[in-house]
Amino acid sequence: MNDTTVTVVGNVATHVEYRETATGGMARFRFAVPSRRWDRQSGTWTDGPTSFYTVFAWRSLAANLAGSVSVGEPLVVHGRLKVREEDGDGRRRTFVDIDALAAGHDLTRGTAAFRRVARGESVPAARRGGPGDLEEPGVGRRAKEPAPVP
Amino acid sequence: MNDTTVTVVGNVATHVEYRETATGGMARFRFAVPSRRWDRQSGTWTDGPTSFYTVFAWRSLAANLAGSVSVGEPLVVHGRLKVREEDGDGRRRTFVDIDALAAGHDLTRGTAAFRRVARGESVPAARRGGPGDLEEPGVGRRAKEPAPVP
Amino acid sequence: MNDTTVTVVGNVATHVEYRETATGGMARFRFAVPSRRWDRQSGTWTDGPTSFYTVFAWRSLAANLAGSVSVGEPLVVHGRLKVREEDGDGRRRTFVDIDALAAGHDLTRGTAAFRRVARGESVPAARRGGPGDLEEPGVGRRAKEPAPVP
Amino acid sequence: MNDTTVTVVGNVATHVEYRETATGGMARFRFAVPSRRWDRQSGTWTDGPTSFYTVFAWRSLAANLAGSVSVGEPLVVHGRLKVREEDGDGRRRTFVDIDALAAGHDLTRGTAAFRRVARGESVPAARRGGPGDLEEPGVGRRAKEPAPVP
Repeated sequence: MNDTTVTVVGNVATHVEYRETATGGMARFRFAVPSRRWDRQSGTWTDGPTSFYTVFAWRSLAANLAGSVSVGEPLVVHGRLKVREEDGDGRRRTFVDIDALAAGHDLTRGTAAFRRVARGESVPAARRGGPGDLEEPGVGRRAKEPAPVP
Repeated sequence: MNDTTVTVVGNVATHVEYRETATGGMARFRFAVPSRRWDRQSGTWTDGPTSFYTVFAWRSLAANLAGSVSVGEPLVVHGRLKVREEDGDGRRRTFVDIDALAAGHDLTRGTAAFRRVARGESVPAARRGGPGDLEEPGVGRRAKEPAPVP
Repeated sequence: MNDTTVTVVGNVATHVEYRETATGGMARFRFAVPSRRWDRQSGTWTDGPTSFYTVFAWRSLAANLAGSVSVGEPLVVHGRLKVREEDGDGRRRTFVDIDALAAGHDLTRGTAAFRRVARGESVPAARRGGPGDLEEPGVGRRAKEPAPVP
Repeated sequence: MNDTTVTVVGNVATHVEYRETATGGMARFRFAVPSRRWDRQSGTWTDGPTSFYTVFAWRSLAANLAGSVSVGEPLVVHGRLKVREEDGDGRRRTFVDIDALAAGHDLTRGTAAFRRVARGESVPAARRGGPGDLEEPGVGRRAKEPAPVP
């Protein structure tokens, strides 16, 4: 197993696209990771260039990302890094993808109310994004405290 | 900069202890990371032993973890790994700590409603749990001030 | 510190270019990371696509990479990941760079004889390959000064 | 796959123990990772405490580590992190292990001469460490340039 795993901390840059496939749900979005560096001269943090990635997710993670995440929100994404080169239109393009294994809202920037979803119970995509969806998913539905880990 | 960074995916094993210090808030909790391995013989996933870490957080991340996270919830934690050895009572003990840089609920296991907290606005622990906070996600469910971290 | 650190395990795909700059030596090479995955159906490892990165190094790491590493050799590279997009010739190109913090020959594939270089003693590129260096491991096999990094 | 992977950069703290097992070679050594931090006040790097790990390796990596690595040498080690707790003698002890997937001499500190070992050709343990072993393994035997990566 020669996988390159990486953790990126940044912001969701595009709407989370979600679709059902033969093997289950799949989600995709662009993710922006700003760089910040301590400048010894000035004694301050300075912003560097931003790196962009395309994040892919599958199954329950895909459904829950689509149901929980909006453009601009801060995330921690942990997954497998892949660099793809593809030819098309007479030019070669490079894609930098992360196949997410786990992801969540970065709590350095705000609070989150979590609601556990039983396996197989993932929110149907058809219900998301509609006009009646003003009650945010995951809010106010947290049933009870999960059992403590022994 | 010789730091060892690590990302752990698992479950919160103890209450998040929070206290105010001279340099800002600090939080601490135990974190359980189960191992799972593909068994080629049987063609199934098998559970391996669980690794335990003590996670520390500071400032806004500390306050937001204390205000958002309950025992048993799944998290992604990204931070600096440290192994400490301390002598006491005639024996040497080993501690495995992660100083969290970012952390969030793992959306492979459920949904989350995120609410951004402006810098400097991080909710003082004493104010959380009051009746006026019920509309805010992640707030209003913490019973009382956690015991101080020794 | 918002850096994305990554560790890649693969093979050196191009000659290590080395040049002296005002702030010390700098090295650059392309690095190939093959993917390999366990196929549950067939019960065998299968090769997936290869990811390519451009690795940059500075100072002693740059000089020692230039003096020790040849095309095709297996390396472990640990560093900061950056994705750059640049416009030119009417098209946008994407570059995936790793600023190396540490790197070494991967001993899963072979043996290595290490020779510590004192700080400040890092072998000037012009002196490497001389006849008196034949006893020293890793020295005496570099043909000539690599082409300058553009 | 819920493994925690980590990369540690530090120094070999003990002799590499090697032994043959029913499933192939196994190596084990202690590894020291010093911490270093930029002190904004003084504008200098300061040393922090050192973290210690036990590194395990198997098969060709085990044989090549045993044949190439001495106490005090700098390494980059990439592998799976595990924290074990064991009871014995009326006390509980904690072990922090890394199952190495790849490892090599850190070229920020010196040069290395690499020699590829064909699969199955790994140096027999019986030849290592003996009195006649003064010519270091991996030195002076590098046959020829490996084929370039296409």
